[in-house]
Amino acid sequence: MTEKISRPLILVSNDDGITAKGVHELVKTLQKIGDVVCVCPDSPQSGMSMALTVNSSLKVQRLEDYEGARMYKVTGTPVDCIKMGVDNLLERKPDIVVSGINHGSNAAINVVYSGTMGAAFEGCAYGIPSVGFSLTSHDEDADFTPCLPVIEELVCRILKNGLPEGVCLNVNMPANVKEFNGLKVTKSCKGRWNDRYVEYRDPANRPFYWLAGEFVNEEPDNKDTDEWCLTHGYVSVVPVMLERTYPELSEFSWIPEKI
Amino acid sequence: MTEKISRPLILVSNDDGITAKGVHELVKTLQKIGDVVCVCPDSPQSGMSMALTVNSSLKVQRLEDYEGARMYKVTGTPVDCIKMGVDNLLERKPDIVVSGINHGSNAAINVVYSGTMGAAFEGCAYGIPSVGFSLTSHDEDADFTPCLPVIEELVCRILKNGLPEGVCLNVNMPANVKEFNGLKVTKSCKGRWNDRYVEYRDPANRPFYWLAGEFVNEEPDNKDTDEWCLTHGYVSVVPVMLERTYPELSEFSWIPEKI
Repeated sequence: MTEKISRPLILVSNDDGITAKGVHELVKTLQKIGDVVCVCPDSPQSGMSMALTVNSSLKVQRLEDYEGARMYKVTGTPVDCIKMGVDNLLERKPDIVVSGINHGSNAAINVVYSGTMGAAFEGCAYGIPSVGFSLTSHDEDADFTPCLPVIEELVCRILKNGLPEGVCLNVNMPANVKEFNGLKVTKSCKGRWNDRYVEYRDPANRPFYWLAGEFVNEEPDNKDTDEWCLTHGYVSVVPVMLERTYPELSEFSWIPEKI
Repeated sequence: MTEKISRPLILVSNDDGITAKGVHELVKTLQKIGDVVCVCPDSPQSGMSMALTVNSSLKVQRLEDYEGARMYKVTGTPVDCIKMGVDNLLERKPDIVVSGINHGSNAAINVVYSGTMGAAFEGCAYGIPSVGFSLTSHDEDADFTPCLPVIEELVCRILKNGLPEGVCLNVNMPANVKEFNGLKVTKSCKGRWNDRYVEYRDPANRPFYWLAGEFVNEEPDNKDTDEWCLTHGYVSVVPVMLERTYPELSEFSWIPEKI
């Protein structure tokens, strides 16, 4: 039995937008643990990384509560949603930022483009323990059922243990698995997108382009990667950092001290 | 005298958009070193990080050549510009990606939000040596003159020495300095934005918000930071990495193997 001493304050966001199934499933689960305030983009923001609106203004609209949670939509990016939540909508700094559940994988190189992880990194920049959850299915009506106990347990453990400064978690879960084989703390797989632009013609015969491509896994047999976990039925938990500086500064002695 | 054996192919982009002074100064300088193809956003994209257009299409328009360089504008983000350049516009993989010159600092935490650095990181993801240049002035007509010899020399040295896999350079230069005191290879300064949203009212009295705030330097006396360099007249060169995985996975033993 959970004693009702002080319920944690949980800020939720995502990048698929306020109408996505994934964020509703997340809110419902997290309401068991704490008081949820959900601040999401009003439109899909997949691939928005840590994009931040600086050259225009934002509108915010409060919606009907969902399962007891306060719900807002913002005309911006996932990062904007976290900033708006922390700076303008919440009465106090939240105890945790939870982003997702994303419809689609954010494993490997996808972590750098992910708006879901953009929101988690932004929480991290505020010094708030933060985590992003993704399911490897783009289906709008994906079955998130197996994810929910994992999310509940991990969020409770993060609240209890905290996270290192500047570090958040990128959690990916394999779709179409009845029961996960387990969880692994692992690292981002090396790989890249083999991109191409598909050319179309508009009614006036002017070209326009849509990005297509396939992910190429450069270490498919490496068991210590998030991609391996996902293809073998495991949940991957990758601790990811906000820090960008490459630590081996001595490798750059060819950069002159004076020009 | 430069022998015309094979001129390097240089892909240029920025986040201030194709009309910005900074990118024109950059193109002019780089044409001395190699063949420049410039692919920039058609609108300002500051703060766009590594945002990538996945849910809509892109248009590309070739403009008049500038100082011998091929110029294109794309209806997308800096990352889109790099992808469009490499995948669709260039005849071969470029020898270097150069982004900027940004109107404004990309030191400290700004590196994570920067569209200028988004383009450089994207070049890096293709395995191309990549560098972003920024001047600490938002003035549309900023004086980039002292930057140009630094850029020319650094780009030549990068072409010669290469960069470690997954690492690019974030170069910031102080504005309003007649002559730089020198260059320092250094690290991102710890600090954060003290944000707030300024509230306005539209003609129908509905609120809208604009982000404001000040950067708080958490280590102002640390000489080994980019911010210190910039406030003391030095050019800061920060090697930055695409890798996100936090290396100390053993700190997460509290994450259960099974739920």
